[in-house]
Amino acid sequence: MKKMANMKILFNPESVAVIGASDKEAKLGFHVMKSLIKGGFSDKIIPVNPGGSEIMGLMAFPSITDYEGPVDLAIVVLPAGLVPGVFKECAVKGVKGIVLISAGFKEIDDPAGADLHEEIAGIANEAGIPVIGPNTFGMINFHSDLNASFTPEFSHLKKGGICLVSQSGGMSHLLGFMAMRADVGFSKIVGLGNRLNVDFAQMLEYLTDDSDSKVIVLYIEGLDEPRDLIEGAKKYNGKKPIIAYKTGKGMVGDQASLSHTGSMAGRHEIYTGALSQAGILTVDNAETLLDTAKAMASCPIPDSPGMAVLSGQAGPGMAACDLCADQGLNIVRFTEKTQQKINELLPPLALRTNPVDMGPAWYDSSAIEGIVRAVMDDDNVGGILFLMMFASANVDALKGISGLLEKWGQQKPVISCILSPPGIWDEQIRALEESGSLVNYPTPERATRAMANLWKYGKMKTF
Amino acid sequence: MKKMANMKILFNPESVAVIGASDKEAKLGFHVMKSLIKGGFSDKIIPVNPGGSEIMGLMAFPSITDYEGPVDLAIVVLPAGLVPGVFKECAVKGVKGIVLISAGFKEIDDPAGADLHEEIAGIANEAGIPVIGPNTFGMINFHSDLNASFTPEFSHLKKGGICLVSQSGGMSHLLGFMAMRADVGFSKIVGLGNRLNVDFAQMLEYLTDDSDSKVIVLYIEGLDEPRDLIEGAKKYNGKKPIIAYKTGKGMVGDQASLSHTGSMAGRHEIYTGALSQAGILTVDNAETLLDTAKAMASCPIPDSPGMAVLSGQAGPGMAACDLCADQGLNIVRFTEKTQQKINELLPPLALRTNPVDMGPAWYDSSAIEGIVRAVMDDDNVGGILFLMMFASANVDALKGISGLLEKWGQQKPVISCILSPPGIWDEQIRALEESGSLVNYPTPERATRAMANLWKYGKMKTF
Repeated sequence: MKKMANMKILFNPESVAVIGASDKEAKLGFHVMKSLIKGGFSDKIIPVNPGGSEIMGLMAFPSITDYEGPVDLAIVVLPAGLVPGVFKECAVKGVKGIVLISAGFKEIDDPAGADLHEEIAGIANEAGIPVIGPNTFGMINFHSDLNASFTPEFSHLKKGGICLVSQSGGMSHLLGFMAMRADVGFSKIVGLGNRLNVDFAQMLEYLTDDSDSKVIVLYIEGLDEPRDLIEGAKKYNGKKPIIAYKTGKGMVGDQASLSHTGSMAGRHEIYTGALSQAGILTVDNAETLLDTAKAMASCPIPDSPGMAVLSGQAGPGMAACDLCADQGLNIVRFTEKTQQKINELLPPLALRTNPVDMGPAWYDSSAIEGIVRAVMDDDNVGGILFLMMFASANVDALKGISGLLEKWGQQKPVISCILSPPGIWDEQIRALEESGSLVNYPTPERATRAMANLWKYGKMKTF
Repeated sequence: MKKMANMKILFNPESVAVIGASDKEAKLGFHVMKSLIKGGFSDKIIPVNPGGSEIMGLMAFPSITDYEGPVDLAIVVLPAGLVPGVFKECAVKGVKGIVLISAGFKEIDDPAGADLHEEIAGIANEAGIPVIGPNTFGMINFHSDLNASFTPEFSHLKKGGICLVSQSGGMSHLLGFMAMRADVGFSKIVGLGNRLNVDFAQMLEYLTDDSDSKVIVLYIEGLDEPRDLIEGAKKYNGKKPIIAYKTGKGMVGDQASLSHTGSMAGRHEIYTGALSQAGILTVDNAETLLDTAKAMASCPIPDSPGMAVLSGQAGPGMAACDLCADQGLNIVRFTEKTQQKINELLPPLALRTNPVDMGPAWYDSSAIEGIVRAVMDDDNVGGILFLMMFASANVDALKGISGLLEKWGQQKPVISCILSPPGIWDEQIRALEESGSLVNYPTPERATRAMANLWKYGKMKTF
């Protein structure tokens, strides 16, 4: 199908026209131009505006048809009434994809909005043009430095393996800024808006072969055709992890969803049940969504729920153990060999079974290394939860594990909560994360929940 | 009782002796000295060590009795076996309080540890000396620049109204570092350790009259005398909010708790039920503990569960509404007058009832101001949840609310999730928080949960 074939060009264009480009800051077309330029898009950018001859130092054209070269992607940011005409020009021009930022279609009270929606859908579908939007902030493909959104600041985000497909621009901004602050990387952020002819199902189909996207994250408010998403997810189940956060539980939420992107949120429980059956892991808040995606993008799935809890202080270890019990993880019983090695490295007054309180080894990074090594050699262990709070006296506590976990961490997950005052261990933690040794979280509970979600996803995959 | 009278001096000493002070970095006595000096304690510091004549530029004494002046507080960091002798010297010297960092008492397998515990308890109780510890990292009183712990970095924490009383040093470090990173201020952090003669109940009694501490936060693993805490909390119920996080749900956790600070964790559900009945709000993770404490320290309690949800984008507003429904908050129906004003400020295509989607007012900070003003005038509204994600086009969206919420925010709670890429809105958010206009959180769900916990606490207070 032509539309699906064009999706790859939509996300990886060699030429982008901004229809409604502007050099006035009060116009969204200004911000879109800035996004493309500041985002470092290195191929052709073509501003289109009947008024201007030059915008941000680039030659502008009155219409897309006045430009002689090819246009792969058109970003449209014009009043809704002008969009059908522009779509026709795009079809004639042979545009391969459109990001339609403009609002004023199906989401408005006026039935004229729905009529416009049908009209432009007809044009796009006939021409085989996939359309992101309308009523969206746009989309970003980080790996090709394409920021096709009205928020230039998205380009500060790190490149990574998480692809966000979202029904809400606000939620996309929230998750994007959270990721910036937590140093988590994304492959793409796609604001589906009113989903003219690209819905969750089409995105899943496209992303299955997108090698940049290791994990797919969905933010869902409501769907016209939930069956398409469910069937699509079942088809791709196991190929890539899919995590979904669905809002719109209450009636009020449903009304909100209707007005927001033009569809009812539907019955929440039916949705989440169906999503789970399709192999999609559901979560119930933005933080867990990002935490889980971060783990999925970097960690192997545990082959058993048996955890080793290694902590530098007993309290955080107990917090992790509590949540393990709640979330279907077990505190494993070590083999005799493992236990013997740990007993050699820690005095009797310490907790040495599991959780292991490594407090007495603070001064001795080789003892911490020895404990981790013993646990890594224990086949009963499906994953390691490693918790270490800085104290002035244990500043060298991480030395023993640098490099040690790198190979093991590619086979089994190591999830940590290592925390210090700002600036002390931050670089060491980043190095451990970048070497693939572990994935770190700001609290023991968030670390444990991420591990539990890896295990839940692993179980889903097998049925 | 002399011991309770001495508590005030323990936390506000004019002279502090460090018994076991050291200038060797491998000794905890080194870090304790550094904490006192770097923490800016401006009164007398007396290092005590039989070997040294000078430690960190201060004259050292072979024993506390060799120092001629008075000693209010003694911090003891010596092998357990030496502690009884030192306690006797402290009693003779007229020391008013002791922080006993040393481990090796009731928490070890050897019954000699329990014997030592009894011995030093006898000495301290007879002399009326309150003792924090043993087996603790220490305590910090931020408002008197007293860092009596082995972690100098605690002194980076901002002064504020939250007092943490914790059975775990690791959890104290975790919460302290979380607070540093979230710019949340503390009054005191107290590591109770094995609780020789200062337990949760004594801390509650002391803190009731401590004007620096607005909110009391407890981290509990297990208690010998839970009844004391419960009775104490009932007595002080309503005077100050008390929030507790209790770990040790599972058997494994219980074993951990036993070895850690010398007592069984006990049956988790019985504990949390009893804590609730005593007017203590219980939470189940470190993040919610800190989030709730932050709100309690700055916000009034809502007089009704009726919320106004004002959001700059629909998605985060829906997430907040979902959690309101789960957590016992209502999305209020505005009065006709309020609704009319909002309708004047927003076009029909927007969500205008509640949640209010202020998206169309992005460019118009006076419209946002008008909406907030209308909602503030509505007596049905018990609190405002304000959610605003930055986008390049709405960079001025906060202008209208600066100053506007300051007075209202002292009567009713305004809790927000305002988020931008690092560095853009951070200063404006800090100014809004410091003026008492609102309290901000990194996600809509965390903001909503903090509001719900304010309401839950308010309901508790009334029975």
